Amino acid sequence: MYSFKNDYSEGAHPQILEALSKTNFEQEEGYGEDTYCTQAIEVLKAMIGQKTADIHFFVGGTQTNLTSVAAFLRPHEAVISVESGHVCVHETGAIEATGHKVVTMPGVEGKLTVADVESAVNSHPDEHMVKPKLVYISNSTEVGTIYTKSELVALRNCCDKHNLYFYLDGARLGSALTSEANDLTLSDLGELLDAFYIGATKNGALFGEALIISNQTLKSDFRYMIKQRGGLLAKGRLLGIQFLELFKDGLYFDLARHANAMACKLSRGIEEAGHGFLTESPSNQVFPILPKKIVEQLEEKYSFYRWQDVDGKIAIRLITSWATKEDMVEAFIEDVKTMS
Amino acid sequence: MYSFKNDYSEGAHPQILEALSKTNFEQEEGYGEDTYCTQAIEVLKAMIGQKTADIHFFVGGTQTNLTSVAAFLRPHEAVISVESGHVCVHETGAIEATGHKVVTMPGVEGKLTVADVESAVNSHPDEHMVKPKLVYISNSTEVGTIYTKSELVALRNCCDKHNLYFYLDGARLGSALTSEANDLTLSDLGELLDAFYIGATKNGALFGEALIISNQTLKSDFRYMIKQRGGLLAKGRLLGIQFLELFKDGLYFDLARHANAMACKLSRGIEEAGHGFLTESPSNQVFPILPKKIVEQLEEKYSFYRWQDVDGKIAIRLITSWATKEDMVEAFIEDVKTMS
Amino acid sequence: MYSFKNDYSEGAHPQILEALSKTNFEQEEGYGEDTYCTQAIEVLKAMIGQKTADIHFFVGGTQTNLTSVAAFLRPHEAVISVESGHVCVHETGAIEATGHKVVTMPGVEGKLTVADVESAVNSHPDEHMVKPKLVYISNSTEVGTIYTKSELVALRNCCDKHNLYFYLDGARLGSALTSEANDLTLSDLGELLDAFYIGATKNGALFGEALIISNQTLKSDFRYMIKQRGGLLAKGRLLGIQFLELFKDGLYFDLARHANAMACKLSRGIEEAGHGFLTESPSNQVFPILPKKIVEQLEEKYSFYRWQDVDGKIAIRLITSWATKEDMVEAFIEDVKTMS
Amino acid sequence: MYSFKNDYSEGAHPQILEALSKTNFEQEEGYGEDTYCTQAIEVLKAMIGQKTADIHFFVGGTQTNLTSVAAFLRPHEAVISVESGHVCVHETGAIEATGHKVVTMPGVEGKLTVADVESAVNSHPDEHMVKPKLVYISNSTEVGTIYTKSELVALRNCCDKHNLYFYLDGARLGSALTSEANDLTLSDLGELLDAFYIGATKNGALFGEALIISNQTLKSDFRYMIKQRGGLLAKGRLLGIQFLELFKDGLYFDLARHANAMACKLSRGIEEAGHGFLTESPSNQVFPILPKKIVEQLEEKYSFYRWQDVDGKIAIRLITSWATKEDMVEAFIEDVKTMS
Repeated sequence: MYSFKNDYSEGAHPQILEALSKTNFEQEEGYGEDTYCTQAIEVLKAMIGQKTADIHFFVGGTQTNLTSVAAFLRPHEAVISVESGHVCVHETGAIEATGHKVVTMPGVEGKLTVADVESAVNSHPDEHMVKPKLVYISNSTEVGTIYTKSELVALRNCCDKHNLYFYLDGARLGSALTSEANDLTLSDLGELLDAFYIGATKNGALFGEALIISNQTLKSDFRYMIKQRGGLLAKGRLLGIQFLELFKDGLYFDLARHANAMACKLSRGIEEAGHGFLTESPSNQVFPILPKKIVEQLEEKYSFYRWQDVDGKIAIRLITSWATKEDMVEAFIEDVKTMS
Repeated sequence: MYSFKNDYSEGAHPQILEALSKTNFEQEEGYGEDTYCTQAIEVLKAMIGQKTADIHFFVGGTQTNLTSVAAFLRPHEAVISVESGHVCVHETGAIEATGHKVVTMPGVEGKLTVADVESAVNSHPDEHMVKPKLVYISNSTEVGTIYTKSELVALRNCCDKHNLYFYLDGARLGSALTSEANDLTLSDLGELLDAFYIGATKNGALFGEALIISNQTLKSDFRYMIKQRGGLLAKGRLLGIQFLELFKDGLYFDLARHANAMACKLSRGIEEAGHGFLTESPSNQVFPILPKKIVEQLEEKYSFYRWQDVDGKIAIRLITSWATKEDMVEAFIEDVKTMS
Repeated sequence: MYSFKNDYSEGAHPQILEALSKTNFEQEEGYGEDTYCTQAIEVLKAMIGQKTADIHFFVGGTQTNLTSVAAFLRPHEAVISVESGHVCVHETGAIEATGHKVVTMPGVEGKLTVADVESAVNSHPDEHMVKPKLVYISNSTEVGTIYTKSELVALRNCCDKHNLYFYLDGARLGSALTSEANDLTLSDLGELLDAFYIGATKNGALFGEALIISNQTLKSDFRYMIKQRGGLLAKGRLLGIQFLELFKDGLYFDLARHANAMACKLSRGIEEAGHGFLTESPSNQVFPILPKKIVEQLEEKYSFYRWQDVDGKIAIRLITSWATKEDMVEAFIEDVKTMS
Repeated sequence: MYSFKNDYSEGAHPQILEALSKTNFEQEEGYGEDTYCTQAIEVLKAMIGQKTADIHFFVGGTQTNLTSVAAFLRPHEAVISVESGHVCVHETGAIEATGHKVVTMPGVEGKLTVADVESAVNSHPDEHMVKPKLVYISNSTEVGTIYTKSELVALRNCCDKHNLYFYLDGARLGSALTSEANDLTLSDLGELLDAFYIGATKNGALFGEALIISNQTLKSDFRYMIKQRGGLLAKGRLLGIQFLELFKDGLYFDLARHANAMACKLSRGIEEAGHGFLTESPSNQVFPILPKKIVEQLEEKYSFYRWQDVDGKIAIRLITSWATKEDMVEAFIEDVKTMS
């Protein structure tokens, strides 16, 4: 049974395991103060074009989000997110567990709009309500869509107007930035966002997310926050080594491009077979709408999530990754074409 | 410069890296629902002798402690710990950040006594104060001492008398259980404690702590707690594979025995050189008291922590590990003997 | 300028002030352990028909809600509420500040339906999401509507089916229970709810809410929770004296009936003047929809809230209370009829 | 049975009840935005000599403390307090429930010293520990002692040196400021502290504490904090009216002077009877050390707390208040003198 359930089904790209082996017996400082973290941070700063950014490595995305929100906001301040946002739905109330409300807005195709933000701010006028303060977006989104540069600029301007922080969850940032539909660079993100993270767990690492804080006022004492929330990895070197390996020669982008290519191939094949899609996703998540009978047949050979019912048919979610095998993609398409 | 600063300076035992490589391209379920976690849990259950225990894997110790306390206690309930306890001092208020007070007691040589627990309970009689509910101990302790079986039995009885939970932080449990002074087994721990964790980060793994919950009432919905606190590792297999490797043939204990042997060798050598110790540690942390001049000379060749001043001399902390090289231990002893 | 802004514009019913004066120099125990609290609790228990209920007095509604939720729920458990629910909107994230998410549902006319609860439960199937656990309703609701007995029975059955707690915010319970449309008794509430509170701040007291906990499992250590959240009033007698005065001879219901009568009179008068309403409210909040020009004229003589725009007109909120003067109601109606 | 248990056994000074009655039917804005709060704030500002201070009224002391700490501190920042401090012991972990650790220091006679603060700061050097940030003191203290101006100046300088906030819990400030041993003024407090509160619950009001925030950086959005913690009283006028009554003509100080005079009379009488004291208290709490037999006889006629055992004898706590009757003080002394 081949899995298209997610992009973290396998271990890590072999180059990462090799680097871990090669450096294994070096003695290093703990808690992210090792030489590999230092090197990886320098490499990332250069790519983002921000010498003064603060960069911290985390093991997972929920941890990154909850630590950031807890560090950045005062008790009465709230997050604004689309309803499908990871922080709204799939983090078991991690944000609320740090004391903060998530104000949810409808969005469009999984993306937050300026109108959403304006509406959230305007509907919270006084001290009997929370104060929306941090705009949370994911790129790519939870439904595979990606933001354009002009959309991010518009949201940035809106944040400036209302004195809001702008934060991007990049759990699948690799796939977004290497999408054919993308016009954003890491450097744009450094300029437009107060903070964002580059996800590696879903793009070839064993684990790892790199949080970049550009806004000077948000940097202070951040390591205390990581430690307090249980996120300071004893052998921090593991994060430094992985990020160094992924970014020193562009491996990160190569892996994401592969995932996108596989998703694109899946989409085209399914389209050729005459089926439609829930969203037009230019990234590594595709949501074909298939007759129930075909879904049931596919489930005998492949694993994936049923996403939602659509007029008697079923939208399923297929995710590709750095490790997705092209022959399995071809087999899947062939199956879709022949099943009925 | 050779380091005796801690037991997480190197990567992992090579057998662990090999296992990660060998299984790398297998597709597995995420979030701890993979086949390796399942196997590792079975192995651990067998060793502990508790078929009904719940076992969860974490990446780090602070995360394990804070998630457990947050899950086990109601808002007004508090932890009892010795002053030197990790949860009191070195977790940046992680317990308090989940809303719970840590009631600190003096203890004896880093160990909590029945008298401490009685005193903590008796001094909190009514609803104007927190209600002490969970007894926290570390084994080995933060100053290298270990608990005997009779001490644990006494604390267990005290907990029963006052309706308290009994929790053991096993960040360095390997070193404790393989100490020559030890008379406890994993099976004893399963019987005497409501919950405890077996630490691997400090004993040969890249990272990993295994929480064992024996008390039926504490098991419910625990995975929600892990996810909410950001501790549910996407590639949970990494934890399963490591624990399986460490426990399927006793590697965990072999590694700890090596660390203890190196610490013992260090102690004897330093003793032979005529120096005393801050505590009598039978585990992998030793605290020799040395003249300042010798400490300064040692610092040119070795890294370690200065612990505290003792009557004009300095107590330093030396930690050995699974990776400590015997020739470096010998060199250190030789240096201590020749320095003056 | 006469105010219809809310039902807490004046002090307290004179009988309450007299009782405070009369008892002023008696020495009483603090923190709710006085003789008046004891008496008031007995009176309330008799009215509710539950000898075993636990009853606690609070100063305010937000405090009652946040303390109850914090006491009743484990960290991953969430509240279900309609979007207009007080806990969702007007408590500045008080529930989230205790760590719990509020899952919001659309509801119908400010009331939560069984379908809402089913949907909330069904859309939260696993540990990556919060676990809905407490159903929160207000009676009367934030838009003046009230629940019928059959609606409450249906919600109770739904709660039983899904193992949920059922909680009622009775900030304006007096107005609900004395409404002509009401078919519920205090005794019904004691039977149908796990916990509910009887609000007095908005019905003639200086302040005060009485929380009734019927569910045995929710009673334990509740006074710790009140103290921890800062809600244990030193001179608890003030609450006991007020509730005794309000309930010993039915004053509470007389006051609420007056408020409802005034609201009813307002509604009829405005209806006679040819205007419609946003909701059909049988309680002490009415929401007439008036032309902007009339609203502006009324604002010169009366204070009230503009609620929302409705097709070019404005829905305003008028609240009556135990203290509302009938001649001012008549004057208001006269003004509406003559303004254009 | 006459009570010397505390200073909140009676209702309020009659002048306050009269003021409440007189203003009862005036319609006022809710939530502290009424004309009486405005007037009371102006009166207090004038007395403190700080036109720019922010002043907020609370119902109780624990609420004031927890709301202030939650508002002032970031998540990793901690409170420094003496072990006997109210926030350490008698608030059921209210501070921890907002996520913050209280670092406890021994102090001297219930007072925090500069050495305590230095020690607390120095023992928390890095991000593995909390960061002490707010110095908490009570005046008068929990054992009846009071701070001198020079002690407060020294603590202020220490706070400046270490970039700490300086906060004073004035639950019994009236008694402290009118003590014969006092050399502090309200104006001194406004200058020396970042924030402090003037307690009225224990000095003649039904309830009420006035928080004065002098530090500009701590003022922002404070009303959100009060609302979020459930402390925004709907009929805020009740606080404004009481504080206006207490401070417009010095009633507050007259009441405190009476309490002190009664305590002083008690002390002298008990001293004349040949008994010693646990602390030398110049305020309204006295701690005589009496033979067990006498204590038992006194308990038949008076209520008070047994405080602690002292070499076979018992230290009891006697508290006087604005309402303490001089003839009962005389009777108590007479009894002590004749009992044996």
